[in-house]
Amino acid sequence: MSDLRVSAALLREFCRDVFVRCGLTAPEAVTTADNLLFANLRGVDSHGVIRLKVYCDRLRAGSFKRDAKLQWIGESPSTALLDGQAGMGAVVGQAAMAMALAKASASGLGYVAVRNSNHFGACAFYALQAVERGCIGFAATNAGPSMAPSGGCERRLGNNAFGFAIPAGRHAPIVLDMATGAVAWGKIFLAQQEKKKIPVTWALDKYGVPTDDPDVAAQGGLIQPMAGYKGYGLCLLIDLLTGVLAGGAFANQVRTLYDKIGDPTEVAHCFGALRIASFMPENEFLERVDLLIDLMHQCPAAPGVESILVPGEIEHATAQRRSREGIPINATLAKELRELAVELNLPALF
Amino acid sequence: MSDLRVSAALLREFCRDVFVRCGLTAPEAVTTADNLLFANLRGVDSHGVIRLKVYCDRLRAGSFKRDAKLQWIGESPSTALLDGQAGMGAVVGQAAMAMALAKASASGLGYVAVRNSNHFGACAFYALQAVERGCIGFAATNAGPSMAPSGGCERRLGNNAFGFAIPAGRHAPIVLDMATGAVAWGKIFLAQQEKKKIPVTWALDKYGVPTDDPDVAAQGGLIQPMAGYKGYGLCLLIDLLTGVLAGGAFANQVRTLYDKIGDPTEVAHCFGALRIASFMPENEFLERVDLLIDLMHQCPAAPGVESILVPGEIEHATAQRRSREGIPINATLAKELRELAVELNLPALF
Repeated sequence: MSDLRVSAALLREFCRDVFVRCGLTAPEAVTTADNLLFANLRGVDSHGVIRLKVYCDRLRAGSFKRDAKLQWIGESPSTALLDGQAGMGAVVGQAAMAMALAKASASGLGYVAVRNSNHFGACAFYALQAVERGCIGFAATNAGPSMAPSGGCERRLGNNAFGFAIPAGRHAPIVLDMATGAVAWGKIFLAQQEKKKIPVTWALDKYGVPTDDPDVAAQGGLIQPMAGYKGYGLCLLIDLLTGVLAGGAFANQVRTLYDKIGDPTEVAHCFGALRIASFMPENEFLERVDLLIDLMHQCPAAPGVESILVPGEIEHATAQRRSREGIPINATLAKELRELAVELNLPALF
Repeated sequence: MSDLRVSAALLREFCRDVFVRCGLTAPEAVTTADNLLFANLRGVDSHGVIRLKVYCDRLRAGSFKRDAKLQWIGESPSTALLDGQAGMGAVVGQAAMAMALAKASASGLGYVAVRNSNHFGACAFYALQAVERGCIGFAATNAGPSMAPSGGCERRLGNNAFGFAIPAGRHAPIVLDMATGAVAWGKIFLAQQEKKKIPVTWALDKYGVPTDDPDVAAQGGLIQPMAGYKGYGLCLLIDLLTGVLAGGAFANQVRTLYDKIGDPTEVAHCFGALRIASFMPENEFLERVDLLIDLMHQCPAAPGVESILVPGEIEHATAQRRSREGIPINATLAKELRELAVELNLPALF
């Protein structure tokens, strides 16, 4: 069964219209639709339109706030603190990243911590905005609990994630966007559907013992941190730089997107920008990044390896292809989008 | 055969005297000795006195410069760029971290990139200095090549490392200090000595194929990045934030500490500090970090797990113990230190 394909422009308009029907202001709707489509274009479908329905459900349940009045709590020449007032994650994140970039352009460096926000999509959405402004960009977020500290067996940490974007010259920017868990729940759910075993490095059962059974993992089990205690450390670090520093929720105080849909999630983020011209002329930096990328591309390859890539390269190529060919929509998602259109009295997308 | 134990104070003095005999100024000798003993006290012996001999060899060969005149290349309100002039890594790093802290206290945030330096010891040495100054501290370094990009089979990236330190209240600071490789060469050499197999996630043979044979790994093989392509991405990121941004050496341009002892290593670093009071009163932050640590400590444990820790906790406990009981010195290292004392006409340490 082949997937439907829908042009990014049409899908973006549809999302925007859906969000407006759910009460978002036009600018909020545009930003949030842009954020979802950004992920779909880059092939990161887990952060794309698949989230449209739960965003709408939360808007209608009142736990995502329409027209939220973002509140700046304090600032210094290179830092700021934002309370997102339970607004749309992408809108809150966009405002915070813009402030980080403004600080960086004034003082060389900008860092913004954010509390009381929501699921904000892919970290790369924000980090990449720095690239066009002559900066290295950074974004991170905590998330509802799905991991334990190393040795534990209760969900006390989110699959916290971070992203960096570094501009290049001839090449596409380097974009590192990763979660600190070994895997996303989505992959475990997929293995359940396909009745396949999972690698023992992915998940733990509810007693904290590694399991290769996706059903056992899903029933009260846990995601394992990537790389063992190193991943646990990185995960904790993100909670410190987001929820703890921002005066927001952290660890198991954060709620997951799909749980108790009427309650606030209280996700916290942080954003950073580093101005390249504070260190060297921008062109010189771009040439140096190109050289680093060339050194990776030209590295002799192991048997069976066709090409050596840098982070973000696959996503960049996917975005170019999907811009031409459209976004694939599987049957489950297509049904969900059709139902949303009917519910909200919008013309069907397909 | 039990190890010798030497008091940290005596060992520190010995290192300082050795460095002075090798031509370092008194302040350079003190800082470098402090840096080595910091690692030994915390149980990170791979970055401790085991490096004394190669530091001396490089000082005598002229590739580590005595009395180096560090050169500040440029600065902005929250950033600075330093050329280490091939001085001692710890001395260069100390100066850079002090500048990052000064910037943070003035503008909320400080970031210093450094080129043309040398092996600087444990990242935590610098990051932890931020903790007493009401800041979150960060340090990272590139290193001579020992890894390939994912899919490659030639050493083109160092086992680049980074460290974060976050102050706590009742608890010891959280200190995350890690390399981006799956393992250090030291562990592979140890397996060679003990004629043991190694996990297949540690190393590749010279063709880029995973191997469990430490001899094969050591003979032109490679360290694997931690967590596969995620570790490769982090490793590349550190090269971008250090060598590339600082206008210094990166990737396979950097030389390893033990290779061609007369040539400069051209290691690059970066240092960061984030002022907590820019976000909330310091005491409130410390309480929040304590709560996060408590949440981890109190997490129900998996079978067989005695206690759940946060990063840096083991090292902190080791430092307290070794402060009382002394630093263990194995027979190989003891012989090396005795020979150094004779060569440099210093009284024997034991």
